[in-house]
Amino acid sequence: MKNTFGNSVAVTIFGESHGEYIGAVLDGLAPGIAVDEAYMAHMLDLRRPSGKISTPRQEKDAFKIVSGVVNGRTTGTPVTILIPNENVKSGDYAQMKTVARPSHADYTAQCKYHGYQDTRGGGHFSGRITAALVAAGAVCKCALEKKGILIGTHVKRCAGIPDREFEDIAADIACLNDKVFAVLDDAQGEAMRAAILQAAEEGDSVGGVLETAILGMPAGVGEPWFDSLESQIAHMMFSIPAVKGIEFGAGFAISDLRGSAANDPMRMEAGKVVTTSNNNGGVNGGITNGMPVIFRTAIKPTPTIFKPQDTIDFSDMTEAVLAPKGRHDPAIVHRARVVQDAAAALVMCDALAMRFGTDYLAE
Amino acid sequence: MKNTFGNSVAVTIFGESHGEYIGAVLDGLAPGIAVDEAYMAHMLDLRRPSGKISTPRQEKDAFKIVSGVVNGRTTGTPVTILIPNENVKSGDYAQMKTVARPSHADYTAQCKYHGYQDTRGGGHFSGRITAALVAAGAVCKCALEKKGILIGTHVKRCAGIPDREFEDIAADIACLNDKVFAVLDDAQGEAMRAAILQAAEEGDSVGGVLETAILGMPAGVGEPWFDSLESQIAHMMFSIPAVKGIEFGAGFAISDLRGSAANDPMRMEAGKVVTTSNNNGGVNGGITNGMPVIFRTAIKPTPTIFKPQDTIDFSDMTEAVLAPKGRHDPAIVHRARVVQDAAAALVMCDALAMRFGTDYLAE
Amino acid sequence: MKNTFGNSVAVTIFGESHGEYIGAVLDGLAPGIAVDEAYMAHMLDLRRPSGKISTPRQEKDAFKIVSGVVNGRTTGTPVTILIPNENVKSGDYAQMKTVARPSHADYTAQCKYHGYQDTRGGGHFSGRITAALVAAGAVCKCALEKKGILIGTHVKRCAGIPDREFEDIAADIACLNDKVFAVLDDAQGEAMRAAILQAAEEGDSVGGVLETAILGMPAGVGEPWFDSLESQIAHMMFSIPAVKGIEFGAGFAISDLRGSAANDPMRMEAGKVVTTSNNNGGVNGGITNGMPVIFRTAIKPTPTIFKPQDTIDFSDMTEAVLAPKGRHDPAIVHRARVVQDAAAALVMCDALAMRFGTDYLAE
Amino acid sequence: MKNTFGNSVAVTIFGESHGEYIGAVLDGLAPGIAVDEAYMAHMLDLRRPSGKISTPRQEKDAFKIVSGVVNGRTTGTPVTILIPNENVKSGDYAQMKTVARPSHADYTAQCKYHGYQDTRGGGHFSGRITAALVAAGAVCKCALEKKGILIGTHVKRCAGIPDREFEDIAADIACLNDKVFAVLDDAQGEAMRAAILQAAEEGDSVGGVLETAILGMPAGVGEPWFDSLESQIAHMMFSIPAVKGIEFGAGFAISDLRGSAANDPMRMEAGKVVTTSNNNGGVNGGITNGMPVIFRTAIKPTPTIFKPQDTIDFSDMTEAVLAPKGRHDPAIVHRARVVQDAAAALVMCDALAMRFGTDYLAE
Repeated sequence: MKNTFGNSVAVTIFGESHGEYIGAVLDGLAPGIAVDEAYMAHMLDLRRPSGKISTPRQEKDAFKIVSGVVNGRTTGTPVTILIPNENVKSGDYAQMKTVARPSHADYTAQCKYHGYQDTRGGGHFSGRITAALVAAGAVCKCALEKKGILIGTHVKRCAGIPDREFEDIAADIACLNDKVFAVLDDAQGEAMRAAILQAAEEGDSVGGVLETAILGMPAGVGEPWFDSLESQIAHMMFSIPAVKGIEFGAGFAISDLRGSAANDPMRMEAGKVVTTSNNNGGVNGGITNGMPVIFRTAIKPTPTIFKPQDTIDFSDMTEAVLAPKGRHDPAIVHRARVVQDAAAALVMCDALAMRFGTDYLAE
Repeated sequence: MKNTFGNSVAVTIFGESHGEYIGAVLDGLAPGIAVDEAYMAHMLDLRRPSGKISTPRQEKDAFKIVSGVVNGRTTGTPVTILIPNENVKSGDYAQMKTVARPSHADYTAQCKYHGYQDTRGGGHFSGRITAALVAAGAVCKCALEKKGILIGTHVKRCAGIPDREFEDIAADIACLNDKVFAVLDDAQGEAMRAAILQAAEEGDSVGGVLETAILGMPAGVGEPWFDSLESQIAHMMFSIPAVKGIEFGAGFAISDLRGSAANDPMRMEAGKVVTTSNNNGGVNGGITNGMPVIFRTAIKPTPTIFKPQDTIDFSDMTEAVLAPKGRHDPAIVHRARVVQDAAAALVMCDALAMRFGTDYLAE
Repeated sequence: MKNTFGNSVAVTIFGESHGEYIGAVLDGLAPGIAVDEAYMAHMLDLRRPSGKISTPRQEKDAFKIVSGVVNGRTTGTPVTILIPNENVKSGDYAQMKTVARPSHADYTAQCKYHGYQDTRGGGHFSGRITAALVAAGAVCKCALEKKGILIGTHVKRCAGIPDREFEDIAADIACLNDKVFAVLDDAQGEAMRAAILQAAEEGDSVGGVLETAILGMPAGVGEPWFDSLESQIAHMMFSIPAVKGIEFGAGFAISDLRGSAANDPMRMEAGKVVTTSNNNGGVNGGITNGMPVIFRTAIKPTPTIFKPQDTIDFSDMTEAVLAPKGRHDPAIVHRARVVQDAAAALVMCDALAMRFGTDYLAE
Repeated sequence: MKNTFGNSVAVTIFGESHGEYIGAVLDGLAPGIAVDEAYMAHMLDLRRPSGKISTPRQEKDAFKIVSGVVNGRTTGTPVTILIPNENVKSGDYAQMKTVARPSHADYTAQCKYHGYQDTRGGGHFSGRITAALVAAGAVCKCALEKKGILIGTHVKRCAGIPDREFEDIAADIACLNDKVFAVLDDAQGEAMRAAILQAAEEGDSVGGVLETAILGMPAGVGEPWFDSLESQIAHMMFSIPAVKGIEFGAGFAISDLRGSAANDPMRMEAGKVVTTSNNNGGVNGGITNGMPVIFRTAIKPTPTIFKPQDTIDFSDMTEAVLAPKGRHDPAIVHRARVVQDAAAALVMCDALAMRFGTDYLAE
């Protein structure tokens, strides 16, 4: 459904960039799950803009939980999280923006909402709405950790500069979760940041690739045909603004391999089935095989730039040139990674609850 | 839901490789849509194995429609299509296969279905089930054409050999729809076929990339956040066996571009908004912008090969070596393209019905 | 969704009265459940018309299971059941019926399907389609029995003649399940049959009330707010043609009671919480309380009668008088009871799987 | 889904009696719909307790809309309504209530939520949560009125005292919508109030029957089989606390009629098809026929009373006697009627959007 995702554990998100609140309703989570607000705040902090490589809009994301939690634990009924929008200038209300920013949702929102959409700051299409997803996903991610299911995302590539591969995934995830700029190789991270700054100075922007690892998912989760785990993850990830691709395991590269190189050989290890490679990213036939679930998303460069661009004014359907002022994010890939963590956690909680029942996460 | 996809136009699929029938129930389609059985048969023919580059299992896919169509038109109630499984050897029933084929669903199905899954020929995980999707999608694709919405898929890459890019999309689609091996550049197609044969001779297999173009979708379709058009398409595509990645427009390549190169400039053309590039693949913010919807999927090499592979026997959790005999597909990418066409058609019909109502396709 | 019901265990139905097959796809059932075809056949027999109180259309309902069952057990993938329509006269195909039978779906189907609906024998709105529901529900009912969950329905009232109340519910259910005309007091049943025959002789029809008891549901099942168990049951029951009301426990009568009389006192019995009355029908706040789930439906008199009725011809929107010939059911309440059993079983399986996971029924 | 209802227009509700906010997210409503806060406030006022026949908890229900509305019109993205809980005593937080109130959700919530449920004031099972439904439904009801679709509910029966039947439905609805105690015959209303007061004095409570009329629904709306309009309405209504039955048209009474009396004769009136009776309540085969949609719900007497009741303490599974103090509602039927109005409006908006597309309500 439109702004609700999930079959057993479901999240509903709402809000606009310049409204009073954005927020999320997280429904169906097992009762008795500890809700760690510090953990949530930490994840929200990682999403927030920071330093010169981000927009100067600085909000604390001082969320509050207004339902579904008593004495620090979920009740089993909807958990509602509100995040106030601060820094909202009332003068913004006046004018309707009708000059479409290329590659934004401005024009498509106009086609769908006929001029009634909230255009202030991108409205419901603003990246800001991802804060609500992060807050809800943080509750899930924290619950998953207690079940031994760990999720981590790194900037696999930014401005063409690669990070190193995952090696010891558990250790890598542990190290990533505290990093503001989440790379496994800090030197490469420095190069990425320099490239972002360079683009910013030129009034331009860069994109990147995010890679997520999910460790500890039991084998046998996923509901093919159509609710294959890959389908569920992909469905969620393409909801995140700027995602233009997703691939699992070896992904697009697997299509150039021969079967003999692509297939993941299987063996027994400490009584458990493992594969000696993971080109399938932990999923076969839409069902987890017990290996780490690995996927990557393509994040397009932030569409808001400061170079003049050809566009149209949809108030009168004429051509126009857009040369925005102010400051915006020259990259969002480093901020989006915690959104991807959160989104992955939401999907895993839903898939596990469908498979093992509504109490599973609290057992 | 598990074997049902769609919100307004929904498809339910069923069947196993060696059962009596596979089939699909297509529900919610507008009443009065012409159902062209020759069109359906043609699409099913394109999916069938052909010549040396395919498995010799040769079934006519002699489908029959057993509900929902009267006098050649949809009634508005469920259209049920049955496809009998011919060529099924009864001797196959006897043994339970417990040696997992690497990178198949054998082991994950065991984890989920505890030994009750139908293992004959891959059971419900067989690529054969895609015939049901093709039959249902053919009804949709035909209906979309009458509304001026055209869908075509080509083998963009196979065994590392590229096809040319889409150029005149309408003409390219027209030409693709009749081709057994769907490439835009026949010389490249010949090279691909040679590479498939070469792999087959070596007991190996190859993969590829499929690229789909959807022409004529009105602007304003898609239900973000979560039911963005990209989310819906991706959800569907990852249901198709062997798909390991999907990307829209420039896809993963966009993540290496700067915003100034990635953004699609907009202009007016004959009173209509167009973009002068299509790096976003016809979708912004999860909503169509009126440009062609373009996406590519990564198809992994067929996992069944004839080289010995390390694996496990899940009857007693011991290691084993698998060296299958018989004949199987050394590639499925050229057959999967019509599955992708059909799957895309199903998603478009659902998205249009959600947006414009249940009668839209028949208006 | 339109012809699909359920969140984890879902049923999709299809077919028309005079098509080749009607059928059902039952998806999401746990793997390993024994499928007892004799049990299914027995339930289908109970639904079939019998003797003078029913239409003479006599079909064996010789169903076949074409997917999802291997060696007599569910595989965990969709179970598809086909029931051929025999006794279908091809001459029926010719004319479009445009004189609406009052209180049938003839006119509303016309409004929705614009003349493309299958009008032969009521098409998709025929009571015959309930055979598909019965077949699918029989698989569920049989599985529930193995978990100690028993379902039985009796004709609580027919032509104004009451059956006795449930007393020893387990014994009453056991006795009902073999009866063609399911009453607890056979003398009252004889009176009902006489009343049906009397109505038939006068070219008229009668209705009734069906009461269902579900024994053995664990406490704590149901997903309020909106997926309360009562909501789920009611949703399903109003899908059955001719149902015009549903009530739980004391039902409408509770609204005339004072709270002190209506409330169900609670006590401990053999370590288990019980209530000493069951005015709430086993559900509080949308969640089972461990007492029998009891509900009744109002079944309207069969709308097809042989007295002249004022109606309209929707081909030209003129008034008309309808005086049908042939033979039809003077009552369906006694046949519908097994439909209600089956429908209840489907809802219980879904609710249990949502609560306890997909494997629950096979554990 | 649990706390989300609807396929195209969906409402998600959240909150507990003693939490900070209750609220609703209303998603999928067409863009451009006027949101009349005075209209919403009026409906909320009608739900609030009033005078001696209600609990003295007096909250203003000072809602605020925090997303989805700009310049008084819907944007097309989620409309979020927050209603603060005032009058909440912090001392209430301390003790866990473990003595179950008979016929409340106390015990069943314990079975489902294992002691983590919010027990203060009934938590998520409190009737207070209906205020969120009323606020969301008010937006829908107002939008429907602009399309000529009118909804009204009266107390058809209370404490055994009947109101008169609907006569001129349009006029009756107009008159009902401003009444605090919604009856068509004020003398009967006075008798009901007296009976409520009498019950209150005796520490007891009463129930009743609510009857809703929906005028102006176009013919052809509803998605059978399973999403018949009756199924959708019933699903929603059984979500409302205290509803134990629902019937359409003549309802249970139809089951005692003969077909010749029950069938609704059809005729033409001013070029429109009408029926001369409405025993089917405006719905045939799950689809509207253009006549008023009429249904009644059974509202059980408020379970909280002041007479001693046998119950159990689920902290140690012992028997107990409950004799509550304080003040509670001796009846809720007169307050629930506006909840029923709102709930009906939500269902109609969803059904219309599924049928005619997402823009329908704003066209």
